[in-house]
Amino acid sequence: MKNPETIVLTPRSLHKLKFDSQGLIPAIIQDYQTHEVLMLAYVNLESIKRTIKTGKVTYWSRSRQQYWVKGETSGHFQYPQEIRYDCDLDTLLIKVQQIGSACHTMKGSCFYRKLKIIPRGPWDAGALGHHDDPRKKSA
Amino acid sequence: MKNPETIVLTPRSLHKLKFDSQGLIPAIIQDYQTHEVLMLAYVNLESIKRTIKTGKVTYWSRSRQQYWVKGETSGHFQYPQEIRYDCDLDTLLIKVQQIGSACHTMKGSCFYRKLKIIPRGPWDAGALGHHDDPRKKSA
Repeated sequence: MKNPETIVLTPRSLHKLKFDSQGLIPAIIQDYQTHEVLMLAYVNLESIKRTIKTGKVTYWSRSRQQYWVKGETSGHFQYPQEIRYDCDLDTLLIKVQQIGSACHTMKGSCFYRKLKIIPRGPWDAGALGHHDDPRKKSA
Repeated sequence: MKNPETIVLTPRSLHKLKFDSQGLIPAIIQDYQTHEVLMLAYVNLESIKRTIKTGKVTYWSRSRQQYWVKGETSGHFQYPQEIRYDCDLDTLLIKVQQIGSACHTMKGSCFYRKLKIIPRGPWDAGALGHHDDPRKKSA
């Protein structure tokens, strides 16, 4: 993605984005240098404008129902370097310079846990859809 | 994120994920080698199970209301290499080996367009919230 297509950001073009019934659109946050995916949060039209105007990524907090300047209390601001949108116009990808930790747990990324897949676990034995472990049956 | 915490993937642990009112959770798809963010789509519990069991990323298509094996018609399968979940348990990050193009436009990523920000555009002139371009007023 060396030379992505660009559009001029105007209030009018922002309105082309497909916000959901609550006026929100998910924003994937990626470190612009390490390319690590840091978090996902939601923005509305006004928070995108605030992000651009202030130079600090600003979300809409669904739990608190208010604007949320990332880093406002922790100092862990996110400075947007690039804002992309996808082919369906319903997701943003914001590449940021991350100050400190993106995650409130102080981990570098909110995605610090991974599912460990057991190749020969219950998944391969027809146990999908319920909790029984078929290996127990043959024990 | 060299050594993320891990859990053993069992049907029970999957149920800890916080699916929304429609039983869905967003999944960020990232190329496991280039680290490029390719797309965002939605999965439900069953499609996560199918992804793990078949080794091919499988979504729930909200528009078609059916399971969607990525690459089923195009051959552009996504082979999951790692599945992470975030601190809030409400977003997945799936690192994949992408065959061909992730995007139906044949671009490498669905995020092939970026918003071009005009530092001295209407944003800085108090025009937020409406469509008037204050530069026109002084012309």
